[in-house]
Amino acid sequence: MKMTTALDCIFCKIVQGEIPSAKIFENDQVLAFLDINPLSKGHCLIIPKTHAEKLHELPDEPLREILVVAKKIALALNVSDYNVLQNNGSRAGQVVKHAHFHLIPKTEDGRGLNFSWNPHGKPSNEELNQLAEDIRKKIP
Amino acid sequence: MKMTTALDCIFCKIVQGEIPSAKIFENDQVLAFLDINPLSKGHCLIIPKTHAEKLHELPDEPLREILVVAKKIALALNVSDYNVLQNNGSRAGQVVKHAHFHLIPKTEDGRGLNFSWNPHGKPSNEELNQLAEDIRKKIP
Repeated sequence: MKMTTALDCIFCKIVQGEIPSAKIFENDQVLAFLDINPLSKGHCLIIPKTHAEKLHELPDEPLREILVVAKKIALALNVSDYNVLQNNGSRAGQVVKHAHFHLIPKTEDGRGLNFSWNPHGKPSNEELNQLAEDIRKKIP
Repeated sequence: MKMTTALDCIFCKIVQGEIPSAKIFENDQVLAFLDINPLSKGHCLIIPKTHAEKLHELPDEPLREILVVAKKIALALNVSDYNVLQNNGSRAGQVVKHAHFHLIPKTEDGRGLNFSWNPHGKPSNEELNQLAEDIRKKIP
């Protein structure tokens, strides 16, 4: 797999060791390190070493590793409650434009990720099935 | 890999076809279908076929497939902004106790996932490095 690096990408600089990080796991595809502005203790980032802004722009190789690494880290943290979050695009809350996955422990005192859940209408089964058919046709 | 099924698990029933769903992708490891209470159009769930409540309890095989499937779906949806979210434990917002990943498009009019980001203090580099070392020792 060709590894891509972007100039002026802070996560590429961390991968290359030009900027220090508190590393917790590394293999040939991915790197995991602690978030410097944690929502809770143990909040970390799991990133592909190759540069891509969004999940759908990444090669499959790192995508196959990321959740296996998340599992290892969750076991090491020994936490029962946690969120895995990945944001694509500024509207979705992405700040650093190198795809990254947050693993965020949720503590008993409420620290961690807080989100609201506001469903948008209630589609009928017919509407859902039609939309599913439309999406299936476009799956690469 | 041994596939585990849990009685009275709604997602196991969906995998087995006992409860219908608007399927958008399926292979031997994972199933993806539309959420029946979507936060935005195209909001879907990607689930391992084998039963486990939380990410860290899953075998590696489905974990290696889930994000590759998320990529396919994001490409099919042709959305620029979206979140991938996975909740473990009731404190973290997990409702159905079969591990599942939300792929939630974020629309221009703000539909989708809304979360707040409240960092908990600002640890020193020394504190981060010590914590990272503690975690590294426990990685399986």
